[in-house]
Amino acid sequence: MKPTEISPGNIELENPGQGNPPPFVHSIRVCWADCDPADIAYTGRIPYFALEAIDVWWQKYTGFDWYQLNIDRNIGTPFVHMSLDFRSPVTPQHRLECEVSLINIGNSSIRHSVRGLQGGVLCFEGQFVSAFVEAKTMKSRRPPADLVTAISSQL
Amino acid sequence: MKPTEISPGNIELENPGQGNPPPFVHSIRVCWADCDPADIAYTGRIPYFALEAIDVWWQKYTGFDWYQLNIDRNIGTPFVHMSLDFRSPVTPQHRLECEVSLINIGNSSIRHSVRGLQGGVLCFEGQFVSAFVEAKTMKSRRPPADLVTAISSQL
Amino acid sequence: MKPTEISPGNIELENPGQGNPPPFVHSIRVCWADCDPADIAYTGRIPYFALEAIDVWWQKYTGFDWYQLNIDRNIGTPFVHMSLDFRSPVTPQHRLECEVSLINIGNSSIRHSVRGLQGGVLCFEGQFVSAFVEAKTMKSRRPPADLVTAISSQL
Amino acid sequence: MKPTEISPGNIELENPGQGNPPPFVHSIRVCWADCDPADIAYTGRIPYFALEAIDVWWQKYTGFDWYQLNIDRNIGTPFVHMSLDFRSPVTPQHRLECEVSLINIGNSSIRHSVRGLQGGVLCFEGQFVSAFVEAKTMKSRRPPADLVTAISSQL
Repeated sequence: MKPTEISPGNIELENPGQGNPPPFVHSIRVCWADCDPADIAYTGRIPYFALEAIDVWWQKYTGFDWYQLNIDRNIGTPFVHMSLDFRSPVTPQHRLECEVSLINIGNSSIRHSVRGLQGGVLCFEGQFVSAFVEAKTMKSRRPPADLVTAISSQL
Repeated sequence: MKPTEISPGNIELENPGQGNPPPFVHSIRVCWADCDPADIAYTGRIPYFALEAIDVWWQKYTGFDWYQLNIDRNIGTPFVHMSLDFRSPVTPQHRLECEVSLINIGNSSIRHSVRGLQGGVLCFEGQFVSAFVEAKTMKSRRPPADLVTAISSQL
Repeated sequence: MKPTEISPGNIELENPGQGNPPPFVHSIRVCWADCDPADIAYTGRIPYFALEAIDVWWQKYTGFDWYQLNIDRNIGTPFVHMSLDFRSPVTPQHRLECEVSLINIGNSSIRHSVRGLQGGVLCFEGQFVSAFVEAKTMKSRRPPADLVTAISSQL
Repeated sequence: MKPTEISPGNIELENPGQGNPPPFVHSIRVCWADCDPADIAYTGRIPYFALEAIDVWWQKYTGFDWYQLNIDRNIGTPFVHMSLDFRSPVTPQHRLECEVSLINIGNSSIRHSVRGLQGGVLCFEGQFVSAFVEAKTMKSRRPPADLVTAISSQL
């Protein structure tokens, strides 16, 4: 949980986050329940949307979502950093298309970027860094080889 | 909503965020409902906690929380940026003390820092930037003079 | 907002909620973010799931979801009652299929039932009653004729 | 998780929920984040408020909140039923005072009522039934004697 100590390590990925292949897209229905009296999605909901997209990314690229990683594999990926720029309001008028790109995977952490678009307009973009830990003890660990292989084979 | 265009402007505040006076502290009861299967507060809840603390800061320093600012004063403060570093898990075992400091208030935006502590341990720290807008139109505007005066008089 | 005064009124619907036609089904991905330390969806999330399903029902049967009803049509449907029985835990291991049935639509209110199933197992079932109001004033009103017609034509 | 099979059992409590002593009150700050575009707390938030009040009731009357009951005592109290009537909108204009009364505690379940008031006006009232289970296995169990004693001594 000390992000300043996180080094990318020596896991090499080709073309991470280059849009080649295109980023993974997770589509979200934004609704009444997400909105505040300004008639737009409440700011606190935006990280939820981005995190949900990363959770689905894990399922797509490794076959395990966070629930399965933790419960079935004893692997946790607690976030050590998130940064978001809000470019345009998110509303229920369009689907929210969340583009998830892998930026880096290292020996101790993984970095994704998430861009949220509605009707072709960029609503937010952010960076998210998670550490690899043993779920039960929260001790740092390397990412499992099979997950790294699964991710790499699809990039 | 274009954070790169936000300039601090010419509103001068003395000793902003210097802990002199000490930062405003908002205390939160973290509970079962906030936690995920890792037995700690879900990452997506942390921005909610920090935002709640800023909302209460507004009430304390100006007499208006976000609801009153928007509904009664037609003033919106949509976020254009947030950045968070997660240092230690947040759990229900201690109160979460959120220290809010004003970093800067300019002609078009305001920046706060929020540090979350439990039992004296730093759990997260972040920076949050909001723009000033007319609530109904979402058009950029200067912060109202009476609010700036109210804030300044307490710093 | 006085449910004891709500009378079904004289709007007749054939075969409401008889499963003939089959109930509308809204499918939800339950995820890590929804779960508490018991490794199941937090109880407070279940009403959210059911309400989301009703919101989508409105979109499907009238062409307007709650956001559009309120913002575009000035029609609100505040809930006056909800009742839920929880039969089996909701988890991320299966999709949550929410079956929404219209039970009654009257001059002042509408009643839905929602059943949530995972892998064929009934997880919860509930009844939800909403009043019809003018959104801006929150004053009671009859449901608009075009919406009643749209709903009736699909039952 | 079969509420129809729940019988009150043979645990006798004097004057449960009679307001003698007065009900336990948990006070909640309703805020911007809780509200939807109708400028009132979103319906889905109301169960959260009521559940939070029951969680605090447990802490007050037994010394253990849900987190501690589950993690430290291996006792779960999953809900099998909730029923809510919404009488008046909940807004950020007043604190929400949640009155929690114990209605019944039996060999397999416990029933609370929660009334939510703002500025003296009843906003909602509901009934909530939880089963007693072993947390890890989710198997039904009797409530621990020390908890029953602690609750009884304060009623």
